[in-house]
Amino acid sequence: MFTHYTNIRVRYAETDQMGVVYHGNYPAYIEEARTDSFRQFGLTYKELEASGIMMPVLEMKFKFLSPAYYDDVITIKTMITKLPEIRIFFDFEIYKEDKLIGTASVVLVCVDALTRKPVKCPQVYIDKLSQFIKA
Amino acid sequence: MFTHYTNIRVRYAETDQMGVVYHGNYPAYIEEARTDSFRQFGLTYKELEASGIMMPVLEMKFKFLSPAYYDDVITIKTMITKLPEIRIFFDFEIYKEDKLIGTASVVLVCVDALTRKPVKCPQVYIDKLSQFIKA
Amino acid sequence: MFTHYTNIRVRYAETDQMGVVYHGNYPAYIEEARTDSFRQFGLTYKELEASGIMMPVLEMKFKFLSPAYYDDVITIKTMITKLPEIRIFFDFEIYKEDKLIGTASVVLVCVDALTRKPVKCPQVYIDKLSQFIKA
Amino acid sequence: MFTHYTNIRVRYAETDQMGVVYHGNYPAYIEEARTDSFRQFGLTYKELEASGIMMPVLEMKFKFLSPAYYDDVITIKTMITKLPEIRIFFDFEIYKEDKLIGTASVVLVCVDALTRKPVKCPQVYIDKLSQFIKA
Repeated sequence: MFTHYTNIRVRYAETDQMGVVYHGNYPAYIEEARTDSFRQFGLTYKELEASGIMMPVLEMKFKFLSPAYYDDVITIKTMITKLPEIRIFFDFEIYKEDKLIGTASVVLVCVDALTRKPVKCPQVYIDKLSQFIKA
Repeated sequence: MFTHYTNIRVRYAETDQMGVVYHGNYPAYIEEARTDSFRQFGLTYKELEASGIMMPVLEMKFKFLSPAYYDDVITIKTMITKLPEIRIFFDFEIYKEDKLIGTASVVLVCVDALTRKPVKCPQVYIDKLSQFIKA
Repeated sequence: MFTHYTNIRVRYAETDQMGVVYHGNYPAYIEEARTDSFRQFGLTYKELEASGIMMPVLEMKFKFLSPAYYDDVITIKTMITKLPEIRIFFDFEIYKEDKLIGTASVVLVCVDALTRKPVKCPQVYIDKLSQFIKA
Repeated sequence: MFTHYTNIRVRYAETDQMGVVYHGNYPAYIEEARTDSFRQFGLTYKELEASGIMMPVLEMKFKFLSPAYYDDVITIKTMITKLPEIRIFFDFEIYKEDKLIGTASVVLVCVDALTRKPVKCPQVYIDKLSQFIKA
């Protein structure tokens, strides 16, 4: 399994009048986490797009166990357990200190940037991930 | 089943560099849709909070079938099929003209605004919804 | 002077833990207002971009006089007093019912979408605006 | 003069279909910068609010000189040149590597969290800042 940890400090802008992080900010948080995870092995989503591949989100799911607050530093654990083919599957655990405050999962699909048709994920990503994941 | 339709025009701010609506905006879209749906029978989420009840999101799920673009008017169908008790379940279909472009579901929980402990949803909501939903 | 009014209902997502609209949402509000104003005379910013012209923001200024709250319907008055050349100047007044709660101004520049170099604003916009504004 | 530098990596969520950072994200960026600057001398905006003082934004101004892109690390220089009384004045310079890409200024006002009436800024902030700023 590929695993990576990313810390994010909650911005004031990300709170709502309930006094907690607005739930609609978590998709951006986990996106920051997964692009950060790619950086770990020298690949960036930015270069992926520059190479003509995009990865739109097909599905996303979140469970919220407890709130995060302004100025909290939350830790997002990004996990990939399956080698990507056309789609790539991510799981996330969101922690505040040692407490699990939420979970998420996301399915992305590799598409050609011009045609927006599904394509196989770039081999370089599969190769890097295969160092961590048994096929 | 309780059903309500809400139109939302996509803002430039809500696009991303893929040229489509950033997926992380859909939680705010469906929230606008469900608060709009409550307004239909003369109840507002604003009054609910003022009365000391909040409804944080416990779970949310999204499937994206096709993108929406800047300046599109999307239509969100809000559906409630089950009378709320402590939790309230919403389903959503997102349309662009007549084409289904996504689905979503959300679970909210009624909590006391002070203690943040789960409580039964206000009877007035249950009464209003029971005009549409068989118990 | 060209004048146009746009109503926007405040989303929960747009509040912060101060219990008011987060100030960082006003740039998106006034953008919705100015693109809505263009629609009044049959021109859309969407078509402008499709025609190869973009209008990035060069400057923006805001004064906040009183807060707006969740579920408020605010009214934004968009004003253009000067015919655009390369740059286009917008002024805004933000109202809650009849009370002025803020003002804003924005300077945009027309650029070629490919080169991102400044160009003269499309004549069709200047022509439409010249029905309202003396040169 | 009090000066502080904060690095922020641009999220995908913060881009728009022009392929650059949407201008409406800069208010949140400079807010992250100024709360980060307070942390430098052991004071947090979070504690300030907990102590019953809020600092809503009265005015904000931005000039954009060149765009920032997805995954860029931008550096925000936060500057305070005048000791706060009821209002506090911040200036900002936004850099991408060594290039100035924008400037901003913000005026906040200290208010009592309950009455929302203006009050003198807490003495502890004035004391800390007076180590850097001549009255």
